Amino acid sequence: MRSVIECVPNFSEGVETSLVEEIAGAVRAVPGVRVLNLSSDPAHNRSVLTFVGDAEGVRAGVLALFEAAVPRIDLTRHRGEHPRMGAVDVVPLIPIRGATLQECVALSRKIAEEVATRFGIPVYLYEDSAGSEGRRNLADVRKGEFEGLGSRMERPDWKPDFGPVRPHATAGAVAIGARAPLIAYNINLGTKDLAVADRIAKSIRHIGGGFRYVKAMAVDLSARGIVQVSINMTNYRKTPLHRVFECVRSEAERHGVAIVGSEIVGLTPADALFMAAEHYLRLEGFSSEQVLETKLLEEEG
Amino acid sequence: MRSVIECVPNFSEGVETSLVEEIAGAVRAVPGVRVLNLSSDPAHNRSVLTFVGDAEGVRAGVLALFEAAVPRIDLTRHRGEHPRMGAVDVVPLIPIRGATLQECVALSRKIAEEVATRFGIPVYLYEDSAGSEGRRNLADVRKGEFEGLGSRMERPDWKPDFGPVRPHATAGAVAIGARAPLIAYNINLGTKDLAVADRIAKSIRHIGGGFRYVKAMAVDLSARGIVQVSINMTNYRKTPLHRVFECVRSEAERHGVAIVGSEIVGLTPADALFMAAEHYLRLEGFSSEQVLETKLLEEEG
Repeated sequence: MRSVIECVPNFSEGVETSLVEEIAGAVRAVPGVRVLNLSSDPAHNRSVLTFVGDAEGVRAGVLALFEAAVPRIDLTRHRGEHPRMGAVDVVPLIPIRGATLQECVALSRKIAEEVATRFGIPVYLYEDSAGSEGRRNLADVRKGEFEGLGSRMERPDWKPDFGPVRPHATAGAVAIGARAPLIAYNINLGTKDLAVADRIAKSIRHIGGGFRYVKAMAVDLSARGIVQVSINMTNYRKTPLHRVFECVRSEAERHGVAIVGSEIVGLTPADALFMAAEHYLRLEGFSSEQVLETKLLEEEG
Repeated sequence: MRSVIECVPNFSEGVETSLVEEIAGAVRAVPGVRVLNLSSDPAHNRSVLTFVGDAEGVRAGVLALFEAAVPRIDLTRHRGEHPRMGAVDVVPLIPIRGATLQECVALSRKIAEEVATRFGIPVYLYEDSAGSEGRRNLADVRKGEFEGLGSRMERPDWKPDFGPVRPHATAGAVAIGARAPLIAYNINLGTKDLAVADRIAKSIRHIGGGFRYVKAMAVDLSARGIVQVSINMTNYRKTPLHRVFECVRSEAERHGVAIVGSEIVGLTPADALFMAAEHYLRLEGFSSEQVLETKLLEEEG
């Protein structure tokens, strides 16, 4: 079985469609890489590319991305609503099948070194690749954005993990790191009272004493006359969907409120849903090897 | 997206490993076919091969199977516990992805015609391919087995759908047909009282007034000190796992008995589990297109 690693680089061009296509096209042309999605946001002036491959394919794909993006994006002239510090801003590596998080950490270090050497771009390792707790969170690493990079790098605690101790003149710096697959999961509550969603969000999220791998906030869906607990599941294997769902159900009931539905935004690994089925159907001895599609993927070698 | 059709032929050799391997090997050698499983039962003197391909691949695979099996299996000398009427006994075609049941019915007719012409073997169409209700059920079609074929075919209502109106001297006859994916699903009850499992099995199965696509019977798991409702789900899209699970839970509760677990025996389409997750998590607007592995399978083209 060949391993499948997902890579979801964000780069700082979301307005000029032709440039976005040239950059994405460079990755598409890499053998062993499959591009699954490309989505651009003009207001953010930023694009998100999703591609998969084995370790070697992902390495080649990331390098091709830098090769195409660095000469085409000039951060000194970049404006957009989304915080950013680099032409290629962030490169997350996510183990999907036949690869561990640890292998993705090793891969991120290898890629970081090559990016620093070949393109002269300073690299910060973040998430599970981070060398210290303070560099784990992307928002912390990116604080001050491109414009603040120069003065920040002078501080010894913000020396990059790889590459020069000064930002690249037009491409800034980049955060590269491994993380578990992330699921954007929202639970809708049958009430207009935002305070209920807010209280529940606070009760389930890690920072407030809730689940370790949950980030959550309340959102008002006024058009539908309901409110939502909007959740980022940062490790669905350790904090599974169904456990969060049942906890929200119990907290909502205490306010006399029902769950009217939930939604998964974007992609999810099949496993996250198998775990829910396994829980509710009380499956004994279930293995994803019993799923026909899993066998089909494996037979590809 | 290329279509994926599953084919699970049963052939009448389960003792001589070398013969079984030669027959399975002939299918493995067909381009566009992937063999997922081979399991032989010496007591039944019978083997079950699972392979997948698109319509053309499956057609070629079935013909290769006959090519290898017909000269190697002589039913006049075949003994085994399992009922059988042919060297290749039954050929089910099952739509998995990108193919409808109707397309598999059309494919079954095409394959049946070719098998009849090339090998001189009479073919009965069964399951969803059956020309009449009386030929739908494999047990009905196979009644009298190989030994009874000759006299039976003389009756006008048992004229084969394709091929000669006399059995092949050594290879008998074959049933070919399309059917929905079948899931073997068992629910375990926390009681030693087989009568409870028996009552529940009768209440959920089609024949007793239960779900249309459910066959069920009670099984005593005395080694574990529990009983089981053993279920064949013959169309999980129309009668989903979670609905049967909840019905069994409700019926069991009425006897003061709890469900201690359930199990899927063998393979299941991913969809069957997604439907359970969707139900219990109350997912809104979920599509299997959101599953990463589905995208991986599709990208293969």
